[in-house]
Amino acid sequence: MNKNKLKTIAALLLLFSFVLTAFTQSRKEISIPDIKGFKTLKCDFHMHTVFSDGAVWPDIRIDEAWLEGLDAIAITDHLEYQPKDDVKGDHNRSYDLAVSKAKQSGVLLVKGTEITKSMPPGHFNALFITDANPLNLADHRKSLRIAREQGAFVMWNHPGWKSQAPDSAIWYDEHEYLHNEGLFQGMEVYNYDESYGPKVYGWAKDKNLAIMASSDIHRLVSHKYDLNKSHRPMTLIFSKDRSLEGIKEALFARRTAAYFNDTIVGQKNHLQSILNQSLRYKAKAELRKDKTIVLQIFNHSDIDYELTLEEKSKDFNIPHHIILYAHKTSLIQITGLSDRINNIEKIYLPYTVRNLIVAGGDNMLAKIEVLIIH
Amino acid sequence: MNKNKLKTIAALLLLFSFVLTAFTQSRKEISIPDIKGFKTLKCDFHMHTVFSDGAVWPDIRIDEAWLEGLDAIAITDHLEYQPKDDVKGDHNRSYDLAVSKAKQSGVLLVKGTEITKSMPPGHFNALFITDANPLNLADHRKSLRIAREQGAFVMWNHPGWKSQAPDSAIWYDEHEYLHNEGLFQGMEVYNYDESYGPKVYGWAKDKNLAIMASSDIHRLVSHKYDLNKSHRPMTLIFSKDRSLEGIKEALFARRTAAYFNDTIVGQKNHLQSILNQSLRYKAKAELRKDKTIVLQIFNHSDIDYELTLEEKSKDFNIPHHIILYAHKTSLIQITGLSDRINNIEKIYLPYTVRNLIVAGGDNMLAKIEVLIIH
Amino acid sequence: MNKNKLKTIAALLLLFSFVLTAFTQSRKEISIPDIKGFKTLKCDFHMHTVFSDGAVWPDIRIDEAWLEGLDAIAITDHLEYQPKDDVKGDHNRSYDLAVSKAKQSGVLLVKGTEITKSMPPGHFNALFITDANPLNLADHRKSLRIAREQGAFVMWNHPGWKSQAPDSAIWYDEHEYLHNEGLFQGMEVYNYDESYGPKVYGWAKDKNLAIMASSDIHRLVSHKYDLNKSHRPMTLIFSKDRSLEGIKEALFARRTAAYFNDTIVGQKNHLQSILNQSLRYKAKAELRKDKTIVLQIFNHSDIDYELTLEEKSKDFNIPHHIILYAHKTSLIQITGLSDRINNIEKIYLPYTVRNLIVAGGDNMLAKIEVLIIH
Amino acid sequence: MNKNKLKTIAALLLLFSFVLTAFTQSRKEISIPDIKGFKTLKCDFHMHTVFSDGAVWPDIRIDEAWLEGLDAIAITDHLEYQPKDDVKGDHNRSYDLAVSKAKQSGVLLVKGTEITKSMPPGHFNALFITDANPLNLADHRKSLRIAREQGAFVMWNHPGWKSQAPDSAIWYDEHEYLHNEGLFQGMEVYNYDESYGPKVYGWAKDKNLAIMASSDIHRLVSHKYDLNKSHRPMTLIFSKDRSLEGIKEALFARRTAAYFNDTIVGQKNHLQSILNQSLRYKAKAELRKDKTIVLQIFNHSDIDYELTLEEKSKDFNIPHHIILYAHKTSLIQITGLSDRINNIEKIYLPYTVRNLIVAGGDNMLAKIEVLIIH
Repeated sequence: MNKNKLKTIAALLLLFSFVLTAFTQSRKEISIPDIKGFKTLKCDFHMHTVFSDGAVWPDIRIDEAWLEGLDAIAITDHLEYQPKDDVKGDHNRSYDLAVSKAKQSGVLLVKGTEITKSMPPGHFNALFITDANPLNLADHRKSLRIAREQGAFVMWNHPGWKSQAPDSAIWYDEHEYLHNEGLFQGMEVYNYDESYGPKVYGWAKDKNLAIMASSDIHRLVSHKYDLNKSHRPMTLIFSKDRSLEGIKEALFARRTAAYFNDTIVGQKNHLQSILNQSLRYKAKAELRKDKTIVLQIFNHSDIDYELTLEEKSKDFNIPHHIILYAHKTSLIQITGLSDRINNIEKIYLPYTVRNLIVAGGDNMLAKIEVLIIH
Repeated sequence: MNKNKLKTIAALLLLFSFVLTAFTQSRKEISIPDIKGFKTLKCDFHMHTVFSDGAVWPDIRIDEAWLEGLDAIAITDHLEYQPKDDVKGDHNRSYDLAVSKAKQSGVLLVKGTEITKSMPPGHFNALFITDANPLNLADHRKSLRIAREQGAFVMWNHPGWKSQAPDSAIWYDEHEYLHNEGLFQGMEVYNYDESYGPKVYGWAKDKNLAIMASSDIHRLVSHKYDLNKSHRPMTLIFSKDRSLEGIKEALFARRTAAYFNDTIVGQKNHLQSILNQSLRYKAKAELRKDKTIVLQIFNHSDIDYELTLEEKSKDFNIPHHIILYAHKTSLIQITGLSDRINNIEKIYLPYTVRNLIVAGGDNMLAKIEVLIIH
Repeated sequence: MNKNKLKTIAALLLLFSFVLTAFTQSRKEISIPDIKGFKTLKCDFHMHTVFSDGAVWPDIRIDEAWLEGLDAIAITDHLEYQPKDDVKGDHNRSYDLAVSKAKQSGVLLVKGTEITKSMPPGHFNALFITDANPLNLADHRKSLRIAREQGAFVMWNHPGWKSQAPDSAIWYDEHEYLHNEGLFQGMEVYNYDESYGPKVYGWAKDKNLAIMASSDIHRLVSHKYDLNKSHRPMTLIFSKDRSLEGIKEALFARRTAAYFNDTIVGQKNHLQSILNQSLRYKAKAELRKDKTIVLQIFNHSDIDYELTLEEKSKDFNIPHHIILYAHKTSLIQITGLSDRINNIEKIYLPYTVRNLIVAGGDNMLAKIEVLIIH
Repeated sequence: MNKNKLKTIAALLLLFSFVLTAFTQSRKEISIPDIKGFKTLKCDFHMHTVFSDGAVWPDIRIDEAWLEGLDAIAITDHLEYQPKDDVKGDHNRSYDLAVSKAKQSGVLLVKGTEITKSMPPGHFNALFITDANPLNLADHRKSLRIAREQGAFVMWNHPGWKSQAPDSAIWYDEHEYLHNEGLFQGMEVYNYDESYGPKVYGWAKDKNLAIMASSDIHRLVSHKYDLNKSHRPMTLIFSKDRSLEGIKEALFARRTAAYFNDTIVGQKNHLQSILNQSLRYKAKAELRKDKTIVLQIFNHSDIDYELTLEEKSKDFNIPHHIILYAHKTSLIQITGLSDRINNIEKIYLPYTVRNLIVAGGDNMLAKIEVLIIH
């Protein structure tokens, strides 16, 4: 084959490749509302490609993120573990191969890497690094110090991973040391398909760590999570704007929450604000002749809020268990209102929200306020 | 059985019945945005119950409407046709039996009836009547005059119904007469599962008639329409507020559109406003080095907008056919931008929207405006 | 209007009505397999219409049944309770109005009625009666004796209904009397959306009663159950053929099971047979070099079988919890096989099936047999 | 880090990787029935990985195939085009890296490669090769001869691909030559998302070529096709058994069909057999007093068969257009039967099936036979 012919073929294949890489499906937008003063960004800062033990080319991670409605991701290939004999490339390579598609699609790409050690201290992701290669050191303290010099935000990955913490997560002296030295600022409370429970949620509060959740996906997101009914685990970032700088500032300020399996773990004020912004209902409801109030609540978020009655009222009856389905309006009947209600202006429905969990505390109290029209 | 026992049973059954009638599913909200200055109410003004040739108790029509996300309905049983030997009740009875459930659930119930004559003039619904019984007359002119005296809004039903108009809809002299007398003000362009086409759409404009669509449901809405993928036909009302008075004012003012099968037929300004309010996109887009602009459009309405290119531009390439899927973000690439683009601030994408049809005109032109960041 | 004109209108409306009543959707077939020697018929023998406290015309119950894939239903309007002032008709009327649509659509219609008394003894459905009117008596014993004379099969409805059994179901002396007299032969273990638990399941065995489940639907089935994801409660009948006679014989022979919420309560042999017929898997599986056996199981039923490990084996590892999803193939890895396996021909996987419950016993043991290819 | 520590990490990561690669979702089985004497295998013989211009590691193609219900695939990386600087590996490498997962999951993996030339003759896949490397030659005739020596089956890919055939597919002299030499035996009539139309279908018949359809997927199947509603394009193989040998024999015997977009293109006898095996209906139907026959047809395949009336009968009326929905039962009313019907035993419903297309012919005629019970 002469050179010209070869050129033609290459050109044709490029064209082919271009057509094939165009998005042929649409992006689902994730409906978790912004909170007061901040945008709620949906982020996944932990995933792999063929440049470590993952199974996809880096730009596939951008396609997945765009289609699933994410705002930002980090590709965090292992520094210490590049098992593929056929793939060569330094530790910045997966970022370099994905950044152009990221810009094209509007997905923000955080430069990151995974520092992969046995426990303690386990695995750490360094985010917002400038160069991954110098971090590839046997001594994790040195690695983390270089990350800090690069201005990185560092998260402790899967503290309760069964392979490294068979009984449950342990806060080793080494973690105390690293934490005191300011060498990590965040922590996964959920990874892949596992939650690490109240003990780890509590550390987020006690140690002032950003609460995070990640897919840690190695193969395909769509093969792990049923994207028609569910979603990958992700970190919610309450950011001043939709930008890399905004995300970095929010991470260091600990304005984050973990979102997985229709559940959010976070700080009380963040959860309260998300719930308030998710629901639209007429605060004013008419007291009917049959001593009944009918309340309609529209939940425009993606989350099915599951409410359980905290304590019964002597003055009225309400259902013990309610699900406020995502993108639907629910109708709640308040019946058997006592005569005492005739003299008051508002009542509170004392529900706890089973799938909104305060890190270092209990489930969130919804306290739905109803003004009564007499 | 003594009387006390009977009372106990009746009480228990009432309780039973009460529990059973509570809504156990949630309401889907229909996402068709409000337009400038008006709320977009979703209404169906044509349906039947056991009090004519329908197959459900009147309050079932309220349950259906609430669950499907409607704002208002009218039950319009035939005056002339009550075929059920076992059911007795005057022509107001279906309204009376449904109005309490309507108030409880917040669905607005318009009092209506159907005047059912052979063609010409065919069938007419009188809406916002005060008493249906006096309208039950052999002479439709007399019927319609009484309706007018009651302040009713009158619509001509299914002008192109095959049984009465086997070839196609005909504007008879009698329609001219009734119209000139002000005895009807609106007209269905779609009924049940049939559209009457451009000729009838044109009458809406030429005769200044409110454009309407109805289910004319006799049995169950859920058995006729696949409510997971589609919706019943309905009339969109652009109303000052969500009230019966608002709807009546809007009907007489002809601020209506017909919504069926993911398609809207209406006035140009209404359609334009719905489209504008449905889409969110960054009007400003960056001109990239590769002479490409990438545009992301989020369609938060229920309607999959189908766009077809009106004419090719000499200055850039855009896809010939685009579907902006409901509740999704689509990505459009504008490629091959000519150098002329370097000197201009904005471009227009000349798409027509195949499922937005101007009554008495063509498909709507979308004219998506893009400001270019150089 | 002259007589001829009236006739024309009536004729047109009849035509209209005919067209409208045609099925516009398709029937879902329920995939619960036949068992050895018997067809598995899907039946609901408890529901209401406008002829008692229901809200639909009788033939709507046929439409619903056909679309949902049922083989047979009984309309069982209350004898004692016809609350609708506007509806007149004797106690056979709802049957008479539905039987023609039943024949047309192939749904088998069992003639039935509900004898509605306070507790004890509560409510009873008499099925396969010849005339409902003579059963309308204050004395339930007399009623039930007449039912018996008509050859009826009688079921005790919702024994644990909160309104009649606020704490839990009670087997009163009156039930002992009626049962000894042969005045009822079956019993609901599930009604509407409530299961009556192991105590009542046990009665089915101890008293030799046919196990049944019913919708007891008063309003619309599609408004109560999400028919895209779930199904109404129903009685499975293991019948010699698909006929009314077959169903009657099977009921008296107690070849029934209760199917609700993806769960079946029944006799052990019936459950075992359903499970066996639901699953297709290669009984023979290869022992791989890595001491692993990979098993693929295709579940072609509608039921997601939920398996939980009964006891760990010393000779291999299998997952603790498996869901064999409906209409899907699941892959199960048996790992860590001990050397002892080299000498044996087959192993059993000791799972219990959480949603197959033996009446009067525990959950069913699946005992999946695997022949090993060495 | 000392050596032992490194080993521990590697071991842990291997464990991690093992867990992550287990299937966490279930396999959908594709319901296209077997035909008389042959199993209907679902195959895709055209796809790419990182070892040419694809974006996934080879074993991902096995995961996708298993989850989607395929029986067999071939990975066909371009010989001439390996654009990834970071990936090295010879032309057998993608097969070698996928074959173990294939065996584990039961997906049959055909060894293949793509010979990629400009038009004429365009691109060819060689299937069932033994070694891809010797085929990498500038001269395609030599390549194809080596393939033939290896016993390969060769298919012509996307003859109508716009980049190589801008107007439409052309049968060049070179194709005539190659075909006469026995250097290719099959041809895609559909590739990715494009069908090449009747002209190309005709070649299948005229030139005795196996009819094929392929995804030619470069990125993710789930990002290109909406797998909840649709499926990737594939070749149906009518094979003596489910084995690689069976597939090879069937390919050379031209027992294949192309399945894409709910449509099958194939030989008439194959299509007829698929349709017959897809439908279950009582062939005998009762002639009712109202001169009506009601027919129920259960379609247990995945395909929505779209029937259009070929010609009206003088003796009865049937719907002009019917869709026999997948996995549903449809009810067809035959009305207005003439008296002539009283004397005959069976009638034929003369429908054509719009989505079953005979290669080199027209749409398939369904000819549904109905025996009449008088």
